[in-house]
Amino acid sequence: MARYRMLISYDGTDYCGWQRQKDHKNGPELPSLQETLEKALGAILNQPLILSASGRTDAGVHAVGQVIHFDTDRRLPKDLCWALRSKLPPSISAKAVWEAPDEFHATLSAVDKTYRYWIWNRPRASALLHRYSWWIRKPLEPDFLNEASRLLLGTQDFASFRSMGTPTKTTVRRIDRVQWTRKASGLLQFEITGGGFMKQMVRNIVGTLVDLEMRGHEPEMISDIITLKDRTQAGPAAPPQGLFLMKVRYPKTLDNKCSQI
Amino acid sequence: MARYRMLISYDGTDYCGWQRQKDHKNGPELPSLQETLEKALGAILNQPLILSASGRTDAGVHAVGQVIHFDTDRRLPKDLCWALRSKLPPSISAKAVWEAPDEFHATLSAVDKTYRYWIWNRPRASALLHRYSWWIRKPLEPDFLNEASRLLLGTQDFASFRSMGTPTKTTVRRIDRVQWTRKASGLLQFEITGGGFMKQMVRNIVGTLVDLEMRGHEPEMISDIITLKDRTQAGPAAPPQGLFLMKVRYPKTLDNKCSQI
Repeated sequence: MARYRMLISYDGTDYCGWQRQKDHKNGPELPSLQETLEKALGAILNQPLILSASGRTDAGVHAVGQVIHFDTDRRLPKDLCWALRSKLPPSISAKAVWEAPDEFHATLSAVDKTYRYWIWNRPRASALLHRYSWWIRKPLEPDFLNEASRLLLGTQDFASFRSMGTPTKTTVRRIDRVQWTRKASGLLQFEITGGGFMKQMVRNIVGTLVDLEMRGHEPEMISDIITLKDRTQAGPAAPPQGLFLMKVRYPKTLDNKCSQI
Repeated sequence: MARYRMLISYDGTDYCGWQRQKDHKNGPELPSLQETLEKALGAILNQPLILSASGRTDAGVHAVGQVIHFDTDRRLPKDLCWALRSKLPPSISAKAVWEAPDEFHATLSAVDKTYRYWIWNRPRASALLHRYSWWIRKPLEPDFLNEASRLLLGTQDFASFRSMGTPTKTTVRRIDRVQWTRKASGLLQFEITGGGFMKQMVRNIVGTLVDLEMRGHEPEMISDIITLKDRTQAGPAAPPQGLFLMKVRYPKTLDNKCSQI
């Protein structure tokens, strides 16, 4: 039995998210990324497989650098990424594969994750970015957003930014870097790196920051919202299509034990 | 009766092109951009309308800055672009409207057009750009492409780059600017500006340049291909999804007679 690490990217528009959905109450359901990838990989290795991802992205969320791992005793084809290409839709791409040590775990070994969020901040909608951004007509002030975001840095209890009704053992998380940048095109880009994020946490943070800016509050209000530890005090979640999982980082010592194949 | 000029953009993935298709032999057909826009505008003005575009983009081709005109005696809503938003799918966006003089004609008044073509030039496919680029695994040399492209400049007979079986009065065209740029992301971007382009001409140019580079020919070969005036001497057309109509320019004197509303 050998363990493999794989780097993948996907356009999440036409998926119900990473994980298979348990109930189908809401009519015909979209496929999950996990089942689509498990089927493709299973067909190539002629063996049912279970994939573990660094984290479960929500319906409509994209990934530029999602990391997964799986175990198999089968011999991999010479170029697994190329072989997968014919079994996967063009909205999913396998970018690299490594043989990994048994101690490597896509979820548990992660050191930090970087997410990006795109806001299309122009008076007119973008026909070409509507699948990849949140459209906000009113011009937002990046200085405000940067000032408020800096108050998120460090290890804090982010209970106010958890997803309603999702139980988690702890709501304490560490945020290392935040940055809002206005691009020439009219895009407003947010990048956030942290030790880990709860379900919908990045979207709740973006939605709250935008909400504070639009309602003319002081940036310091974000600290009050954190202190209250109450989800209802924060703003609504930003829509999923603007969010991209950019990068998952693992300890250098583990990276060194992975050999690309 | 007043004439209006409108700037629009669209994601061409789910359309059969600008123009309505005449026969539907190939099964269930995609809608055309023209009919989708005519229906939306007609619903708002409560009047059937005919739209003229600067040019007819092919199936799958996108537009960042397509220009159209139409005539109507109806009074336009205060913000037509905003009103159109609720009648159009998110893949089409109306960006600006002007009241234009009668002599303005989207097709006939155009001075030049700029197209962009994106090649995703990396070993692995891009899940997020597959709708907007041509994937070529082998690294292409921008210096070669730039050198060969410069031989396209000026007023020449581009019969070798016309579309098979499409009659045109003349195959002489003027090309003013060409530029290949390698982006950090792995994208290879081509921009071309000229007085006008025949059906599939930009895609035939891109396909031929890439073909010459991949087969190890000299850049000067492009001049031989032009001289032969024979479509079969040029390379295959590059696929449509990498092509964007970026900008249509009109005479300054006409621009000055258009007033944005």
